[in-house]
Amino acid sequence: MSGTLYGLGVGPGDPDLITLKALRVLERVPVIAYPAPETGDSLARTIAAPHIPEGRDEIVIRTPMVPGKFPAHDVYDRYAEEISGHLAAGRDVAVLCEGDPFLYGSFMYLFSRLADDHAMQVVPGVSSLGACAAAAGVPLVSRNQVLTVVPGPLDEVELEARIKASPAVAIMKVGRHLDKIRRVLGRLNLMNNAHYVERATMDEQRVMPLAELNGKGAPYFSMVLVRHGEDEAGI
Amino acid sequence: MSGTLYGLGVGPGDPDLITLKALRVLERVPVIAYPAPETGDSLARTIAAPHIPEGRDEIVIRTPMVPGKFPAHDVYDRYAEEISGHLAAGRDVAVLCEGDPFLYGSFMYLFSRLADDHAMQVVPGVSSLGACAAAAGVPLVSRNQVLTVVPGPLDEVELEARIKASPAVAIMKVGRHLDKIRRVLGRLNLMNNAHYVERATMDEQRVMPLAELNGKGAPYFSMVLVRHGEDEAGI
Repeated sequence: MSGTLYGLGVGPGDPDLITLKALRVLERVPVIAYPAPETGDSLARTIAAPHIPEGRDEIVIRTPMVPGKFPAHDVYDRYAEEISGHLAAGRDVAVLCEGDPFLYGSFMYLFSRLADDHAMQVVPGVSSLGACAAAAGVPLVSRNQVLTVVPGPLDEVELEARIKASPAVAIMKVGRHLDKIRRVLGRLNLMNNAHYVERATMDEQRVMPLAELNGKGAPYFSMVLVRHGEDEAGI
Repeated sequence: MSGTLYGLGVGPGDPDLITLKALRVLERVPVIAYPAPETGDSLARTIAAPHIPEGRDEIVIRTPMVPGKFPAHDVYDRYAEEISGHLAAGRDVAVLCEGDPFLYGSFMYLFSRLADDHAMQVVPGVSSLGACAAAAGVPLVSRNQVLTVVPGPLDEVELEARIKASPAVAIMKVGRHLDKIRRVLGRLNLMNNAHYVERATMDEQRVMPLAELNGKGAPYFSMVLVRHGEDEAGI
């Protein structure tokens, strides 16, 4: 009997935002795997840490996370093979994913390599979208409005067009794109409609109007939420 | 001491997709409230049912959920007043919300009436977005792609423009808009890029390529996921 591969959403940061379902998978799989930078800790493992029983086999998927080097396909090929070995030997493997496995995130690089040949189950998790909105105390989107989720790395022209065209926008992966986002929102006269949320639900969470944020940079795990148009109030 | 109002995401349907955090709030609040149609069961309460301790004070927020009558502002005024009474008397109140409280959903009508005068905490939940993608086994969005979340009730011209403009689209609240969605996807030559998911993570879950769905209608809690363009494969 071959094993099942789980894509396990562990939520946005607060370990208590894991689901019961993910918890039960964690309690019984013999092997866990998680992404990590080339040096340093894995955020996904840190989030799940209080819930990981001792004695699990752990696969640390170390990949370069810098633009131009990501995704490193040879690295994912290698880890997919290692995971495949466990599955073929009948051992279930859970891949820990920050937030939700299918909303961005590197789980997809394993999924695309393994889904055709192995049993697979994705356990959805609380995403940073809901977490940032909760932290900021502002609804993401309401009634019959369109919500556009925009990655910060988009080029400036497209970023501006996307924000302009949508009454509710979540700009993810802000990081080093903060200045560009500020310029775009400034031109659209929307700086006062923007909330900034950094590391939502984690101990280091910061929330403020974007207009009050000082400094030129932001961490990768930060988001800008924008509402505008006739439905600005959100209701 | 006045009480705290909780907006409690209970997840998309499977009771095990509730978070530990929501569970802990449920275990200690004396009052719960939840939306329900004018007659019949509340979906949010059904999802949370296995986790609701006995002896809770329960407020059933019955509202007409038909177009033209929703939102019924006088109804929300009345329930907000009832909830406000509990809070003023020092009792915490948890409002159960399907999915995530700030991604559409009627919690906003209470939030807008109560947030200024009461302590408030929103507990994010697993949304139907991640749940439908997990059920269909297709990533919602990857790399630096834009994701557009589109309510099915949008008019046909805007619906078409939004789908055309975005490489990844989630069409929510399909319901009686199924035929319109089919027409739009047909014109855009995207019928073969569309997955249909009904009641994700519930016992009655149905998943299929949209092209294989028979019949003219769908339940409100159904979604169509579309990927297209050069990144169709999703990776």
